[in-house]
Amino acid sequence: MLILGLESSAKSASAALCRDGALLAQVFQQSGLTHSRTLLPMAEDLLKNAELSLADVDVVAVAHGPGSFTGVRIGVSTAKGLCWGLEKPAVGVSTLEAMAWNGLCAPPENVICCAMDARRGQFYNALFTIADGAPRRMTEDRAISGADLAAELTQMARPIWLVGDGAALCREQLCAAGLEPALAPEIVRMQSAYGVCRAAAGREPQSAEALIPVYLRLSQAERERLQRIKDAGGGA
Amino acid sequence: MLILGLESSAKSASAALCRDGALLAQVFQQSGLTHSRTLLPMAEDLLKNAELSLADVDVVAVAHGPGSFTGVRIGVSTAKGLCWGLEKPAVGVSTLEAMAWNGLCAPPENVICCAMDARRGQFYNALFTIADGAPRRMTEDRAISGADLAAELTQMARPIWLVGDGAALCREQLCAAGLEPALAPEIVRMQSAYGVCRAAAGREPQSAEALIPVYLRLSQAERERLQRIKDAGGGA
Repeated sequence: MLILGLESSAKSASAALCRDGALLAQVFQQSGLTHSRTLLPMAEDLLKNAELSLADVDVVAVAHGPGSFTGVRIGVSTAKGLCWGLEKPAVGVSTLEAMAWNGLCAPPENVICCAMDARRGQFYNALFTIADGAPRRMTEDRAISGADLAAELTQMARPIWLVGDGAALCREQLCAAGLEPALAPEIVRMQSAYGVCRAAAGREPQSAEALIPVYLRLSQAERERLQRIKDAGGGA
Repeated sequence: MLILGLESSAKSASAALCRDGALLAQVFQQSGLTHSRTLLPMAEDLLKNAELSLADVDVVAVAHGPGSFTGVRIGVSTAKGLCWGLEKPAVGVSTLEAMAWNGLCAPPENVICCAMDARRGQFYNALFTIADGAPRRMTEDRAISGADLAAELTQMARPIWLVGDGAALCREQLCAAGLEPALAPEIVRMQSAYGVCRAAAGREPQSAEALIPVYLRLSQAERERLQRIKDAGGGA
């Protein structure tokens, strides 16, 4: 089973190939370039340099969110595009669950605190423990304030290991609340396509047509539209 | 300071770009393909997808050994080739020291035991601790038997964290000697070009002409040649 994984939910982008759960190849970059220019060439070069083609891929997996609205859309669209021509099935996985696989590098007993910067004072977050060599969910994916997250983690009274593009910012806020979380080392801090492949393994592949972004929150444009409707209604 | 790092000392191959100590991009593969076909295209695609060119690179760093004789030669040759045209300087670093950077993912107080399969009952090995966020050497690079390594580690009586292409084999031998070493998680087990970049930072760049492989042992061809000379001398 050859899985091609794609991850573009925040500033970094990556593509990975896993065969039967083992990492075959991965490319990662956090160059500041837009994913719409980099993700597809990265995936194509990854296959080319492994002397494989899309025809060899059994499933295309993608981090379907939460994350940057644009980043998630680019990831999901790229997955759909790749699947389209060769009628490959797809699997969408939670960005937070995918990055929790980096938690295999955390000391035992740690709570894996996945944190993405969701702006507006919130983090996209989920908590995991590692059990039997895989992440096990302690919470659903949610958008949560630093204060609420700190309160929840304080009550847990367990060591904390922070991963994700929001890990450094989250660490500041948890430290301010008196906690002492550890920051994942740089090499495993950012979300990566390896985690996407691992999270996708064992999931039932679906038609790429059914793949949709999972934003958790409304986009700014949608919030503003709803506000305009509300304002118009309120003024009528 | 932009460093292009190359690693091809064993079955995996990787190339990475680090700017001022931070990871910008990395490509890694363990596809079983020969490095002579994959390493240079990987490095070229890495630069292309980061919209950089070799002209932007300040230093080319390479894992100069120990390791597979062919793999090390391909890495060093590729570095020389890349440096040649644009007169870029190079830095050669120990393969074992480069992989010790993965040890940043190890629990504190662990001895980072870098292990490559050197065949003939030996490992290429060096031991490190992590201090101030960087590996600190406890031993020189050496070729050592599993039994001798187990004896040394038993005397140290510290938790052990195994990294490198020989980590799994080394673990078997250390366990047989009554030790309980931890195996680095898959995502950080193999040597990678990220570590090469980190190990190269702060080293004085030299002319690529001065770059030479460091084998630690004689190659099979050289051993056989010396044996023939010895046999001929013994028979005279």
